[in-house]
Amino acid sequence: MTKKSRFLQTPIEPFVVDAGLRADELLARMERISFQGRNLATAHRIWQKMLQDDVTIFMGMAGALSAGGLRLIVAHLILHRYVDCLVSTGANLYHDLHETRGQRHYVGSPHADDAALAEDRIDRVYDTYASEEEFIANDSWIAEFAATLEKRPYTSREFLHRLGGHLWTTTGRDGILTAAYRASVPIFCPAIADSSIGMGLSQARQQASGAGYIDIIGDIVESANLIIRRPRTASVVLGGGTPKNFINQASVQAEFYSSEVGGHRYALQIVTDVPHFGGASGSSLEEAQSWGKLATDSDKVSVQADATIALPVLASALVTTCAGLLPSRRKPTFSLASRVMTIDDQTVPSDRFEEVNEPAV
Amino acid sequence: MTKKSRFLQTPIEPFVVDAGLRADELLARMERISFQGRNLATAHRIWQKMLQDDVTIFMGMAGALSAGGLRLIVAHLILHRYVDCLVSTGANLYHDLHETRGQRHYVGSPHADDAALAEDRIDRVYDTYASEEEFIANDSWIAEFAATLEKRPYTSREFLHRLGGHLWTTTGRDGILTAAYRASVPIFCPAIADSSIGMGLSQARQQASGAGYIDIIGDIVESANLIIRRPRTASVVLGGGTPKNFINQASVQAEFYSSEVGGHRYALQIVTDVPHFGGASGSSLEEAQSWGKLATDSDKVSVQADATIALPVLASALVTTCAGLLPSRRKPTFSLASRVMTIDDQTVPSDRFEEVNEPAV
Amino acid sequence: MTKKSRFLQTPIEPFVVDAGLRADELLARMERISFQGRNLATAHRIWQKMLQDDVTIFMGMAGALSAGGLRLIVAHLILHRYVDCLVSTGANLYHDLHETRGQRHYVGSPHADDAALAEDRIDRVYDTYASEEEFIANDSWIAEFAATLEKRPYTSREFLHRLGGHLWTTTGRDGILTAAYRASVPIFCPAIADSSIGMGLSQARQQASGAGYIDIIGDIVESANLIIRRPRTASVVLGGGTPKNFINQASVQAEFYSSEVGGHRYALQIVTDVPHFGGASGSSLEEAQSWGKLATDSDKVSVQADATIALPVLASALVTTCAGLLPSRRKPTFSLASRVMTIDDQTVPSDRFEEVNEPAV
Amino acid sequence: MTKKSRFLQTPIEPFVVDAGLRADELLARMERISFQGRNLATAHRIWQKMLQDDVTIFMGMAGALSAGGLRLIVAHLILHRYVDCLVSTGANLYHDLHETRGQRHYVGSPHADDAALAEDRIDRVYDTYASEEEFIANDSWIAEFAATLEKRPYTSREFLHRLGGHLWTTTGRDGILTAAYRASVPIFCPAIADSSIGMGLSQARQQASGAGYIDIIGDIVESANLIIRRPRTASVVLGGGTPKNFINQASVQAEFYSSEVGGHRYALQIVTDVPHFGGASGSSLEEAQSWGKLATDSDKVSVQADATIALPVLASALVTTCAGLLPSRRKPTFSLASRVMTIDDQTVPSDRFEEVNEPAV
Repeated sequence: MTKKSRFLQTPIEPFVVDAGLRADELLARMERISFQGRNLATAHRIWQKMLQDDVTIFMGMAGALSAGGLRLIVAHLILHRYVDCLVSTGANLYHDLHETRGQRHYVGSPHADDAALAEDRIDRVYDTYASEEEFIANDSWIAEFAATLEKRPYTSREFLHRLGGHLWTTTGRDGILTAAYRASVPIFCPAIADSSIGMGLSQARQQASGAGYIDIIGDIVESANLIIRRPRTASVVLGGGTPKNFINQASVQAEFYSSEVGGHRYALQIVTDVPHFGGASGSSLEEAQSWGKLATDSDKVSVQADATIALPVLASALVTTCAGLLPSRRKPTFSLASRVMTIDDQTVPSDRFEEVNEPAV
Repeated sequence: MTKKSRFLQTPIEPFVVDAGLRADELLARMERISFQGRNLATAHRIWQKMLQDDVTIFMGMAGALSAGGLRLIVAHLILHRYVDCLVSTGANLYHDLHETRGQRHYVGSPHADDAALAEDRIDRVYDTYASEEEFIANDSWIAEFAATLEKRPYTSREFLHRLGGHLWTTTGRDGILTAAYRASVPIFCPAIADSSIGMGLSQARQQASGAGYIDIIGDIVESANLIIRRPRTASVVLGGGTPKNFINQASVQAEFYSSEVGGHRYALQIVTDVPHFGGASGSSLEEAQSWGKLATDSDKVSVQADATIALPVLASALVTTCAGLLPSRRKPTFSLASRVMTIDDQTVPSDRFEEVNEPAV
Repeated sequence: MTKKSRFLQTPIEPFVVDAGLRADELLARMERISFQGRNLATAHRIWQKMLQDDVTIFMGMAGALSAGGLRLIVAHLILHRYVDCLVSTGANLYHDLHETRGQRHYVGSPHADDAALAEDRIDRVYDTYASEEEFIANDSWIAEFAATLEKRPYTSREFLHRLGGHLWTTTGRDGILTAAYRASVPIFCPAIADSSIGMGLSQARQQASGAGYIDIIGDIVESANLIIRRPRTASVVLGGGTPKNFINQASVQAEFYSSEVGGHRYALQIVTDVPHFGGASGSSLEEAQSWGKLATDSDKVSVQADATIALPVLASALVTTCAGLLPSRRKPTFSLASRVMTIDDQTVPSDRFEEVNEPAV
Repeated sequence: MTKKSRFLQTPIEPFVVDAGLRADELLARMERISFQGRNLATAHRIWQKMLQDDVTIFMGMAGALSAGGLRLIVAHLILHRYVDCLVSTGANLYHDLHETRGQRHYVGSPHADDAALAEDRIDRVYDTYASEEEFIANDSWIAEFAATLEKRPYTSREFLHRLGGHLWTTTGRDGILTAAYRASVPIFCPAIADSSIGMGLSQARQQASGAGYIDIIGDIVESANLIIRRPRTASVVLGGGTPKNFINQASVQAEFYSSEVGGHRYALQIVTDVPHFGGASGSSLEEAQSWGKLATDSDKVSVQADATIALPVLASALVTTCAGLLPSRRKPTFSLASRVMTIDDQTVPSDRFEEVNEPAV
């Protein structure tokens, strides 16, 4: 018998199927299989570590996850503080608002006759439908709300907190925006102009001159200041897109102004895009290390999977294994009701970066 | 309030996360979300229907599923007769044999230094390693076994049954080949020449003139005759490749000779390939209907997911919800020990098709 | 001989290879092959039609196309008015600015040691490198420029026109921003906050209080008014992302205010994302018809390909076959130097939608 | 000015578009862009090197390339000896035979009504149609031919050479099978049982007892002996599948018997599959090095692209730049008309490996 190679250390343990396995047991048995199954199990493990460490956990959310039935998972993760800050596309927040306002998305078919749908004014998102009429009513509802606000620029963070509050007051229903409002979790939406929330805001301007100004450059400053204030961070990304980059950019920007910032300590992403076409959505976490977005010794994993499969499994495992960790989590505390937010009672300006760099001793 | 469009019938039900959810509960809550999550839930539902109907269930298996830790799931599905006939690539059977013989695959990294691995004679499959030396020993073991067989052509089905029997006698260990042997489930391997089992067979010829003849055209005849004998079928495909097409081809071939054959009644596939490049692996189940591979009214679903995520969830749900259905399943009974196999006591020749077409009345 | 099916009308013409074939000849021979090759040939054909019709052609650009070596193609298409309006991610404009300022991106490897790159402060984009130091200098350059502007909100369109002008004055070099400036082609960047241009703007605010305000809601109004003013449009999308949706959203928004708007008349997209995960980047053009983003009788094609292969071929063919069409193109004329832009001498407000709906006769 | 990093050596050269660019000029201008465009240009460069070196060039071919309009490109590459040995799926040879026999595939739509197609007995391959009736006639034609052959096992290589000869005699038309016959280029089809050629062979057995025996294990021996006889090899793979692995396996198998074999010296693959699901089709060329399938110092490139785009461009460039290299190519010479083939006048047995290992000096 020859000496074992140093490469052959940890045997694959084939998954053994049993009746009644829970989500966390599924993932425990997937830890030593291969490919994306192993990666999903690793994602669970890494999220557990985040919750036990002293890090601010950013979550990014792109793709049609709210329309697709995942909004109450995200709401749960926010409300119970599995994450501390959400960066989202506008569409996910809009589809969340749509349902929180009591309307629905519908089971449809990817093989639909789109001309017939157009005739009926039904909007299709792959295999899911919604009523255009209801969407137009949402736009007006957003416009009316935005028109009531004091006429000044709002960061998307401030605007979305106010919108969440208005939704919660009006409906009392669970959802992403209302959970974030109730849990005082900030939401950033850097591409709000590319969404129906943006369309609603543009219509506010039609109703009231000077309404609907969003200061997205202020969002850059605010998000970087968040990290300057509390430099240890983690990143959970669902689906790439602008949220993925915005979370990374905040870290890079913060590093200009504070030598304590050194890239995320943990990173997990669930994406379907691939690295080899060069786009940011599919870019690898290794690549992110070259930029300093991620610490070179960070714990990280990329899961190549549709979030509609991966997230239900992962979140169900997480709430089973980690609910007990939440009470002792060293999580940041935010106040979000004003123009200037605070984190752990420190102000987080949106008009200038906090410069805290010190000469290395 | 306007009248609802006929397209808006079944609302999306957002997934509600709870502690302790089992695999079957996960899938039950994914039935009315969207995208691939919904499809995976539908796959569970369709497999349940298969088990309650009177159909022969073919399972196809491509991709490195055995090396990747799924072989004992497949073995379980065979042993307990969630499926009736396996069509596999050679590699999956070879990696199964590798572990059944007591050897292991190992957890590795996709970022490995392949020159260093080559130096150590470690073979990499994405993030999984194996010892080349052990592989060479397997090849010899297969060659030696094959050299002991009577010198005549063997269908892959007959050869693999004999190989499974030899493995079971030698090791008494669970695995795909041994489960199929014990449960008298036939395995076809149409591309056996493109695998290390084929390499072992080619080395048998080196040891014993006239050894290592595989009659893969006989496999075509036999698989079609199986369907002629029992025309109602279902197809479960993991990963595309030659198994996917071979299962469909058997149905098309059978239809030439029996008017009772009309394409699979149920079909589910878990694939990562996509339709739009035209390859068979990624081809849609709709396309399969144009060929008559699938009945036009079949129950079908395609899940775009890595089997290392989808299969653990799906199989765990299945053994929870369907174990009770197995005793009353109207499943076919095979005898496989001879050159000519039987199904439900009828012979299934490999040298000529059974012609049972009758004039339409 | 049986009667031909109505489905068998146009035979596939196998591609015949010859020495010396030009890009346009390649595409001509690909018109009657299959899969994405045929789609790329169709894209050429559709773009030709756009140029001969009276439509405003929007181009969307996402993915790392500028860093990846395609910026001078896009610049050419703008300068010679193969397109009339660009919607881009910030990164593509930033990487364009980087090179226009005389700096380079570099050929790298996807297998690089990212820790070593981080050590050297080299940022990796898959197989392409850039100097972080040079990037920081760009940010400062942008900040300094932005700090010189009058302190008021700017649509991204106005800001980018001014930035392009400054670049052109300073460098006299070809690029996307300078071409758009010279050709008076508007550029919208709805997600400018998610890019290094946004980071530069945020630093402007550090230098000069009140600097760096971008009115991206104004961009929504302006882009919709563009379409209200000139309702016949076409869409060319490279890579999905926010540009793809923003172009479609402008059309949907415009439709609220003008009954003459009816979705794009032509649409072509070159994407690598797929529809079946539900994200907007990979969504099909058929789906876009359900929303009214695209006319139900539009000429359209989706090409599943990396733009670094597809665009060089397509653009080379286009400039060969269509340069002669440009002089007689009925293209819109813009003035972009002021807060309020004009199209064909009509104002395009950014603070309120032009309402031109008339009662149906 | 700071010192340049060692990583910043070769600047990206943006593609400059011009009228009239030829395929080879396109690729020359793509050599220093990024992502898959650069890879396609590199593929051209590597193939040029192969043609100037003393290597046997294997080409693998999977996916519906023949139906999809690429068969005459492959035929050209064979006839003019840009490649020396083809390994193909059965479907590609079958669809080639279909057209060489004077029948056609047809332009179709991926959105077809498959039930209507089934009604008309039209078989769909994504966006391409064919007549089932004509397919059935092909099967019979193959069966009849196979039934005329002496009753003994044939390697797929021998059978396909005879089939190509029969096709050439019968039709005199260009195609893959006829080009290979005329140029004495061997074709291996390890998964012939998974194709309509296999179905035709199975029907031959119905007509004539003892007909239709294919010795695919003999193909393994023969392909390895080819490499033992001429150990320097190169691999060009279109689309993964069984051909990709069979070409690699031949090299690995040959290495057992000859110490001169050391993996392919050059490798290029054009694939759409990805590595991260673990399947062989998408596996990286780096991974192949761990197995010794590829020399660790080989010249290699992977192009992620649909072959219907990549191959027309690449082959058109190749015939422009490399036709002049062909007369002086040191290519192998085959005789294929007998049971035992020869290479450069040496026999290539199919019943035992040539053992030429020598003790290392």
